[in-house]
Amino acid sequence: METGSLWDDLPARPLDAELTNVLLERPAFRIERIVSTGQATPEGQWYDQETDEWVLVVKGRARLRIEGEAQDRELGEGDFVLLPAHCRHRVTWTEPDVPTVWLAIHFAASPHGPRQSQ
Amino acid sequence: METGSLWDDLPARPLDAELTNVLLERPAFRIERIVSTGQATPEGQWYDQETDEWVLVVKGRARLRIEGEAQDRELGEGDFVLLPAHCRHRVTWTEPDVPTVWLAIHFAASPHGPRQSQ
Repeated sequence: METGSLWDDLPARPLDAELTNVLLERPAFRIERIVSTGQATPEGQWYDQETDEWVLVVKGRARLRIEGEAQDRELGEGDFVLLPAHCRHRVTWTEPDVPTVWLAIHFAASPHGPRQSQ
Repeated sequence: METGSLWDDLPARPLDAELTNVLLERPAFRIERIVSTGQATPEGQWYDQETDEWVLVVKGRARLRIEGEAQDRELGEGDFVLLPAHCRHRVTWTEPDVPTVWLAIHFAASPHGPRQSQ
């Protein structure tokens, strides 16, 4: 049985890059812990993913820009967002002084047919 | 795009039963927020589920008993547990004074064949 804590092995000081740990992986999806220590997506770059992603800020704070939106979304503890595949987005800011801990669930489109409307 | 906060509409006082909200549902899995306000599984009863469940305590505290184990597991903020299908378990205690917020991901066995060994 896989057990653990999202606070296991948190970096004591800012890292050069985000830290990603896979907590559980199955064919249909993957659960990750992502730790940011001030990182942001480089200017002009966008994430454009093949899979849907559901992401939750468990600790810390971040700002997220969705392509086409006029301003960043402010995300704090407890906030979650569904990012459909190919919804281009950037992380424009994460808290620099304390780690921001994200829970990210990446999941493939349904194997049973077209994506359900939500 | 589904967005929200795990703190939305938290009960201001203890409820008669746990509160469950489905945050995202797809054929292969379902993400739920569960709020406990002191509830525990009735004495002598066990959860025996058809699907695997990955569960995280986001706020609050709880105790979990797995059948066959000698004592409860203490779960606090950030702790997660994978409960395989038919792993009989009980919640023996949740914090009575403040809501305990769980994130639960229920997922079916892989449609692609036998369960992967982990």
